[in-house]
Amino acid sequence: MSTSTSAALDAGRGPAEHGVRTQIIEAATAHFSHYGYDKTTVSDLAKAIGFSKAYVYKFFSSKQAIGEVICANCLSQIESEVHQALQGVQAPAERLRLLFTVFVEAGLRLFLQDRRLYEIAVAAATDQWPSAQAYEGRIRQLVEDIIKDGRASGAFESTTPLEDTSRAVYQVLLPYLNPVTLPHLAPLHKEAPSALQELVLRSLESRPQ
Amino acid sequence: MSTSTSAALDAGRGPAEHGVRTQIIEAATAHFSHYGYDKTTVSDLAKAIGFSKAYVYKFFSSKQAIGEVICANCLSQIESEVHQALQGVQAPAERLRLLFTVFVEAGLRLFLQDRRLYEIAVAAATDQWPSAQAYEGRIRQLVEDIIKDGRASGAFESTTPLEDTSRAVYQVLLPYLNPVTLPHLAPLHKEAPSALQELVLRSLESRPQ
Repeated sequence: MSTSTSAALDAGRGPAEHGVRTQIIEAATAHFSHYGYDKTTVSDLAKAIGFSKAYVYKFFSSKQAIGEVICANCLSQIESEVHQALQGVQAPAERLRLLFTVFVEAGLRLFLQDRRLYEIAVAAATDQWPSAQAYEGRIRQLVEDIIKDGRASGAFESTTPLEDTSRAVYQVLLPYLNPVTLPHLAPLHKEAPSALQELVLRSLESRPQ
Repeated sequence: MSTSTSAALDAGRGPAEHGVRTQIIEAATAHFSHYGYDKTTVSDLAKAIGFSKAYVYKFFSSKQAIGEVICANCLSQIESEVHQALQGVQAPAERLRLLFTVFVEAGLRLFLQDRRLYEIAVAAATDQWPSAQAYEGRIRQLVEDIIKDGRASGAFESTTPLEDTSRAVYQVLLPYLNPVTLPHLAPLHKEAPSALQELVLRSLESRPQ
C-alpha cells in the first residue's frame, strides 16, 4: 500500500472510503495480472488484502464492478495516448493516420504484454460493459470529428453523408479496437501496418466531379 | 449428405473405405451439431456409430482430422455460394460488392443457425487448420483477381501497387470471414450492411490525376 493510500485511510470517512477502494483496485489489478480475471474470486481478493469478503462487498457490488474500474483505467490510458499523439497535429489525414496507428499499437501492446489484464478487456468487450460501450462511443465520435474537419478544410470529399461515411470508417477500425478480434487480425496487419489507413484515406479523398 | 461433401472426401481410396469414411463424417456432423465439437470425443463418436474407437482411428488420425473434413465441406459450400453469385456478373465493382455481401451473409447464417458446427469453424480459425488457411488464401486471390480485372477495364485506379491494394481490401473483409471475429462486428454491420463495401469501392475509384 502506498503512503498516500494509508494517509487517506486514516483521514475522514470520504477520503478513507476512497482509500479503501483504491486499495482494493490495486490488489485486484495485481491479483488479476497474476492469476487472471476469470480464475479470481472476490473471496480470493479479500483474503489477499486481509479483508473479509463482506467488507469488499461494501465497496464493490461484484467482481465485475472491480473489473469495470480496472478496465476503465486501462481504456482511458489508451485514450490519453491517442489524444497526446493528436496534439498539435492539424492535417485531418495525418490525424486519422495517427488515430489508426496509436489505437492498434496500444491494443497490441496490451495484448502482448499483459495477457492477464487482457482477459478483463475481453470480458468487457464480450459482455458489453458500460465502460467498453462508452469507450467505443467516444472513438466513434472522434472519427466523425476528424472527418468533419477534413470536409470543412476541403481535404476530404463532402458528397457522401457525413454520418454514413464516419460509421464506415469506424467500422474499418473497430476490429482493431476490440480485444477479442484484434489477435486474429494482428498477423495480416503486421504484413503492412499502414495499409488499412491508406485505403480509408483514399476513400475519403476529395476529387473533381 | 450433399454431393459436395462426398467430393471433398479423400479420393483415391477403395469404395469400401470411402463408404466408412463417409459414414464417420455423417455421424460426426450430427454428433457435433447436437453436442458440440469441443464436448465430443472420438470414443463418443465410435460408440454412436457402433464402431470401436480403434476402428475409427484407422480412418482418421484424430478428432481434428474429422473436424477438418466437416470444416472443409462447410467452407466449400460458402465458396460455391459466392461463385454462383458472381456467375454472369461482369462489372468489377458489382463483383466486389457481391463478394462482400455473400461472404458476410453466409458467415452470419452459419453463426446464427448452426451454433454447434460453428464451434468447429472457431477451432479451425483459431488454430489455423490447413482447411481454414487454404480458404483464406483462395479468397485473398479472388479479391486480387477482381481488382486486377477492374484495373484492366479502367474502372479502378491503377496508380497504387496491385498487391498492396488487394491486401488492404482483403484486410477489410477478413474480420467478416473469421468466425471468431464476425459475431463481435455483426451489430455494427447490421446498422448499414453495405457501408464497408462502398467505402472500399470509393478507395478503388479511378480518378483524374
